[in-house]
Amino acid sequence: MAGQWRQRQLCVLVLLSAGIYVFLLNQFTDSIRMWTTRNAATTILVLTPTYPRPTQIADMTRLCNTLMHIPSLFWVVVEDAYNKTENIAELLEFCSVPFVHLAKRTPRNLTGPYKGRGVTNRNEGLRWIRENVHTIVSDNRSAVVYFADDDNAYDIRLFEEIRKTDPNRVSMFPVGTIAGTGVSSPIIDQDGSLLGFFDPYPAKRKYMVDMAGFAVGLEILLRSGAKFVYRTGALEDYFLRDLHFQEEDIQFLADRCTRILAWHVKTSGGPFIKLITLADKLKPFVNNTNLFELVRLYSPVPR
Amino acid sequence: MAGQWRQRQLCVLVLLSAGIYVFLLNQFTDSIRMWTTRNAATTILVLTPTYPRPTQIADMTRLCNTLMHIPSLFWVVVEDAYNKTENIAELLEFCSVPFVHLAKRTPRNLTGPYKGRGVTNRNEGLRWIRENVHTIVSDNRSAVVYFADDDNAYDIRLFEEIRKTDPNRVSMFPVGTIAGTGVSSPIIDQDGSLLGFFDPYPAKRKYMVDMAGFAVGLEILLRSGAKFVYRTGALEDYFLRDLHFQEEDIQFLADRCTRILAWHVKTSGGPFIKLITLADKLKPFVNNTNLFELVRLYSPVPR
Repeated sequence: MAGQWRQRQLCVLVLLSAGIYVFLLNQFTDSIRMWTTRNAATTILVLTPTYPRPTQIADMTRLCNTLMHIPSLFWVVVEDAYNKTENIAELLEFCSVPFVHLAKRTPRNLTGPYKGRGVTNRNEGLRWIRENVHTIVSDNRSAVVYFADDDNAYDIRLFEEIRKTDPNRVSMFPVGTIAGTGVSSPIIDQDGSLLGFFDPYPAKRKYMVDMAGFAVGLEILLRSGAKFVYRTGALEDYFLRDLHFQEEDIQFLADRCTRILAWHVKTSGGPFIKLITLADKLKPFVNNTNLFELVRLYSPVPR
Repeated sequence: MAGQWRQRQLCVLVLLSAGIYVFLLNQFTDSIRMWTTRNAATTILVLTPTYPRPTQIADMTRLCNTLMHIPSLFWVVVEDAYNKTENIAELLEFCSVPFVHLAKRTPRNLTGPYKGRGVTNRNEGLRWIRENVHTIVSDNRSAVVYFADDDNAYDIRLFEEIRKTDPNRVSMFPVGTIAGTGVSSPIIDQDGSLLGFFDPYPAKRKYMVDMAGFAVGLEILLRSGAKFVYRTGALEDYFLRDLHFQEEDIQFLADRCTRILAWHVKTSGGPFIKLITLADKLKPFVNNTNLFELVRLYSPVPR
């Protein structure tokens, strides 16, 4: 009797353990599957040129808040400055997005109304990507490069669209709040063929697209030496031409360019009196108050 | 011998099962603990007034991206419109933040340069909170109300600061990129006493604070009938006076007001020609292209 009871006990325990094992195995298999999917997906390399101005931290903070939602994303942040700044370094340290922080100042002779903006630091980011991409994207994975300015607005669904870009192709999609027309987009017919571009600024451009309106497969970027030129209004077009792809190879994303998931906007804040000037007037008590810290932290210096 | 072997087997199985049980128990206990913490925490009620304009969706999208990071937050969105709009409804549906979507149009005789903005819809939000807060915050939990405009920028750490607000008190903290001084903040001495306010716009105000620079405990709000008045530049001050609290009861957050975690900024995009006007010119082929969808979706109508 005792032996039989023990045998039954054994049976129950074996079944129970088996059940628990199956449950756990499922749990772990799920985790591994999720991990594999995340790792097998195309990596998005987001290249953000940034420069010192009063709204810089506000803009970079909002972009960080957006990018933190996106898995398999690597952030290439390039300051237009001689040295990396403490403010941006602290922000990136807090932001849970894998990143590289670079700095390259635009030479004085290459600034001005016709020279374009963010050229030097975008090119520095491209140089970094071409030289170091193997350390962040392994051979058997694909990647795509997107140029995300810090002041624009992005729907998180944009990044899942961008991820569809073939490593050997260029993708395009609409951008909202473009001055003039309100939107910039490729015009495509019902067969998905390119008819032209809907954009407020034709200027004899072959590709009338905004910086926020295209993404580039890593392979096509690595094959070409394409970089940005110092010429206002020609940045996107010259860069895209330099990639040497066929028009029929462009991928049109965002439900065949019918959805707006990126907005070209500017942030305004100011005008400012330099905080330090005002604080000077308050000197009698600034040193014994919180203003001392605020002055130290936050002296908006327009470029 | 066979009996002994079976006994040993039994022993091993019992130990193994016990180990697995302890492991699982730990897992579940952790989950419950986390769930309790999240639920015991103060709920943040974020009240956002919004109005139709070309950059509205871009701004609301960025704010959604920010709020999605914050646990125990409820979003009260009030449009300045006769009816709730499809665009905002879709955005809130996608955004994984618990919300209520309301609409109340500012009467025509209460618009104008001296009447203030966002008064009608902020008051509608306050009315909703006073009447319905029991459905989202249970009796044994605390809550705090924060007025977050859709175009401002917020560091996600701001919300953990706001959560510290006592239900019976008002909290204050610095706001960055304020036109003029670059920052608006209470000035507090080393003992934590209020010395005054650092703000570009004194205007005989008792509380010289920006809309983004304070949060109100739910109890103090419910006790008072405080609402916003139609008077430019007096919104924050009159509302705060109406709450009838003692100056020494103000809580100073963000490391004794030494950190900037909120920025008062505006988004600029445009000027726009109405998309529909331009699309009219393209009519010969607009109906057979993606532009048809874009025109339908996105006709920026300045207020």
